[in-house]
Amino acid sequence: MAKETLRVVARIVAKADKVEDLKSTLSGLIAPTRKEKGCISYELLQNKVDPADFTFVEEWDDDACLEAHLETEHLKQALGRFPELTAVAPDIRRYRLIG
Amino acid sequence: MAKETLRVVARIVAKADKVEDLKSTLSGLIAPTRKEKGCISYELLQNKVDPADFTFVEEWDDDACLEAHLETEHLKQALGRFPELTAVAPDIRRYRLIG
Repeated sequence: MAKETLRVVARIVAKADKVEDLKSTLSGLIAPTRKEKGCISYELLQNKVDPADFTFVEEWDDDACLEAHLETEHLKQALGRFPELTAVAPDIRRYRLIG
Repeated sequence: MAKETLRVVARIVAKADKVEDLKSTLSGLIAPTRKEKGCISYELLQNKVDPADFTFVEEWDDDACLEAHLETEHLKQALGRFPELTAVAPDIRRYRLIG
């Protein structure tokens, strides 16, 4: 059986007047994150009905790789802009695949 | 450029005493749904911290395929059990891929 990976669904909601600014900030995370150790998949989605609702759908080798991701400079820089850009605290949830 | 597909993130929360029953009901949707027209990916996740939190991460050819999915017998039968099994209404969101 294949080793269980870590799945992450992270929702980030923009302030009404910061949608494009947040979109740009989050988009900038994609390339450097995909180069990180243990990053299997990292996709940014935007809600078709509510454009302020962004969601990352992620797959990592394990929790340790995600913890390392949270300490990267590119993520810390983005998180540093969240008080200015986001309406609520990010909702980051860790999952396992059932099937 | 590849045609844009529809991404779906659907969160379903079990009543505290119905986690295994809901898990079984949702798991039963995987095989028939993957055979549906336009279903590119259909994965069921369970929250590692809160086992009552289930999330489907889905990819469909387009909205029409998702609408057809919502009319299938297997989904209707599962939805018919939701009042008994779930704590809140399912949160089904439609997204496009940014990158």
